[in-house]
Amino acid sequence: MSAEEIAAAFVQHFYQTFDNGVDALGGLFNDQSMLTFEGQQVGGSSAIIDKLRSVGAVAHSVKTTDVQPSSNPNAIIIFVTGAIKIGGDNPLHFCEFFHLVSTAPGQYYVHNDVFRLNYGL
Amino acid sequence: MSAEEIAAAFVQHFYQTFDNGVDALGGLFNDQSMLTFEGQQVGGSSAIIDKLRSVGAVAHSVKTTDVQPSSNPNAIIIFVTGAIKIGGDNPLHFCEFFHLVSTAPGQYYVHNDVFRLNYGL
Repeated sequence: MSAEEIAAAFVQHFYQTFDNGVDALGGLFNDQSMLTFEGQQVGGSSAIIDKLRSVGAVAHSVKTTDVQPSSNPNAIIIFVTGAIKIGGDNPLHFCEFFHLVSTAPGQYYVHNDVFRLNYGL
Repeated sequence: MSAEEIAAAFVQHFYQTFDNGVDALGGLFNDQSMLTFEGQQVGGSSAIIDKLRSVGAVAHSVKTTDVQPSSNPNAIIIFVTGAIKIGGDNPLHFCEFFHLVSTAPGQYYVHNDVFRLNYGL
């Protein structure tokens, strides 16, 4: 698979799973993973899932996905923009960055995850 | 300097320089650098500066800066959101990701740069 194919599959899986029940995302993170969510940083799979669960019911709509090779030859950079509905509220712009690191051929975990809403000009 | 201090100094320098004349950014990139600007990918310092110059007169207003250590121990991840005015138009939301890689103590170049506007819900 190309980096673009890996990214497309990851992005579809990540947001579909998130919207249907965030606990199923646990396997994408490990003890080295970091999440910064609206400026709050947590580390490790279980703290990350706790943080994502605390957001409540969400629905993501992905608009763009960009991919670049990392400086780490075993890693891929994925940059996503789109809209998110939190609870029943109106959609807001979001952007999110993932650094996927390979642990074996075809196997990746999320090393870095940074999420920001983009509102209020 | 901490990663947060490096990121704060980089972000201030990058956008101030960009808004005052993009050619002075050339030294932040090298032949390994990649830029994806609104989905268009270019590589190498001179192609990157050409791409940024083509955007025309801009004014950035940074709202948030997030920092994480990379999987590469000599690198820093920086994630920025804010507003950008292009020409005399109304401001738009933007988000931008930088992967700074160290080449010597205190010396960094931009390995990855991904920029997206965030509009149109």
